[in-house]
Amino acid sequence: SSSSMDSGALRKKFMEFPYVSAPHRNLMLELISSMETRIGDSLQPCTLPPDVQYFENPNGSAHASLHLRSGVPSSQIDFILGGWIHCKLPSGGALNITSLSSYLKPSTDAPHFLIDVIQNSRTSLVLILDLTPRKDLILNLDYLKTYYEDTQLDTYRQCLQGLPEVSPYFSPSLYIRSVLSPTAILVGIDTGDGEKSIEEMIQEHISPIAKEIVQLWLDKCASVEKQVGETERAYLAKRDQIIKSKTIEVDLGSSFPRLFGQEVSAQILGVLREYYNA
Amino acid sequence: SSSSMDSGALRKKFMEFPYVSAPHRNLMLELISSMETRIGDSLQPCTLPPDVQYFENPNGSAHASLHLRSGVPSSQIDFILGGWIHCKLPSGGALNITSLSSYLKPSTDAPHFLIDVIQNSRTSLVLILDLTPRKDLILNLDYLKTYYEDTQLDTYRQCLQGLPEVSPYFSPSLYIRSVLSPTAILVGIDTGDGEKSIEEMIQEHISPIAKEIVQLWLDKCASVEKQVGETERAYLAKRDQIIKSKTIEVDLGSSFPRLFGQEVSAQILGVLREYYNA
Repeated sequence: SSSSMDSGALRKKFMEFPYVSAPHRNLMLELISSMETRIGDSLQPCTLPPDVQYFENPNGSAHASLHLRSGVPSSQIDFILGGWIHCKLPSGGALNITSLSSYLKPSTDAPHFLIDVIQNSRTSLVLILDLTPRKDLILNLDYLKTYYEDTQLDTYRQCLQGLPEVSPYFSPSLYIRSVLSPTAILVGIDTGDGEKSIEEMIQEHISPIAKEIVQLWLDKCASVEKQVGETERAYLAKRDQIIKSKTIEVDLGSSFPRLFGQEVSAQILGVLREYYNA
Repeated sequence: SSSSMDSGALRKKFMEFPYVSAPHRNLMLELISSMETRIGDSLQPCTLPPDVQYFENPNGSAHASLHLRSGVPSSQIDFILGGWIHCKLPSGGALNITSLSSYLKPSTDAPHFLIDVIQNSRTSLVLILDLTPRKDLILNLDYLKTYYEDTQLDTYRQCLQGLPEVSPYFSPSLYIRSVLSPTAILVGIDTGDGEKSIEEMIQEHISPIAKEIVQLWLDKCASVEKQVGETERAYLAKRDQIIKSKTIEVDLGSSFPRLFGQEVSAQILGVLREYYNA
């Protein structure tokens, strides 16, 4: 159980990504490594309680690890949250979700970063990969230009969608659709009986694109100092607060009770809400 | 030429939709009729100059008609703009665009309405059909709920996308993607060598959905009195102004010079900009 692990063992458990394929694990480790190499000095160690860093459901069919590192006070990083969830399915298969998101503070208006890889069968997954806008893009067309047009972000989406295994995915949550950027990669990948496996799709197509988008986020978003006035800071703080609490509600609140039971779920979500509001 | 036509003849020309199929024409006439039956008393006659209500390019290969009716001062309707464009293509085919959009005034925050049917070959078209949000949906989750979740708008999109001839369409303009709602219908329809013709797709699938969405807009948006305070009016006016000027730029400004030549194009767009700013 997690209570017997020290912080080193808990971080190791997180970094194991123990239930996913090697290409999937490598993808996540490379993204985390890119982030920590570049902005590690701005991050505090994970301070989540041990039983939130690793937890299971009562009957042991679902396991998860969460790793949250807040930015130091002087940095623009609010926090980085990584995690994995594994759950045996009644069908005999398993659900594996891996996720990495980075939130910035209201001292900058640059986009947040988000990747979710949701594999629900041996031959299919859903990928969400985006730099999430912090502002209404219609009232801020210069923002749309700077972060989404000038960066050519849409070419990555086009590139993936050109592959026969890939098709657009529509989240059932209208909130999720609304919060993502117009260049968001939101796709289903189904290899069916095709020549390529999901593992090859991750290694050859998802990994290179995800790494480039993380680099872009590190270069143009996390590392650029911005002058943000008082009024705008308040606006960003308010909007970010909605994003964070709504994301917990939609992303985790809808699945956690089902996967981990009411008790474990309520405890984890309660702790996360505290950190998200911090 | 348009200068010899009186206002009755110009309206008749607009309502002819002379270059499209009967089901396509009927779709547009039914939408216009639904609008005029319900809110006709709130609309002034079209006051566009005759040479903007109907125009051609110098060599006569492209024709267009525009019909703009402003709301009376006491109404919530800003204006309704309908139009058609026909252009012979060098390939021997033709490009036919029909469009109807309704903008509301800042005295209400309810969504605008928009339909664009862009047929660029005998077997394919692009459909854009949406209630366009007036506010940032993240900062206004109640607005998302009222107009997009509670109305079940997404079921129309799902219904269309379930058809084998229909696939999601991604506008090359990130502005267009940003301005649309999360339930926007933005699809390509390609009948290829299939059993159904484009005309049948319009009649059986597009028409019923477009008519329901217009009704929904008339019931829940155009006809509901809202209490909008001073600050919010100013916000809505500013955001609408961006939408209107950017829509002219992206939607018409990018194609009109190519279709109608610099001179005709500059004149038409100049007049439209005046009306849009009014």
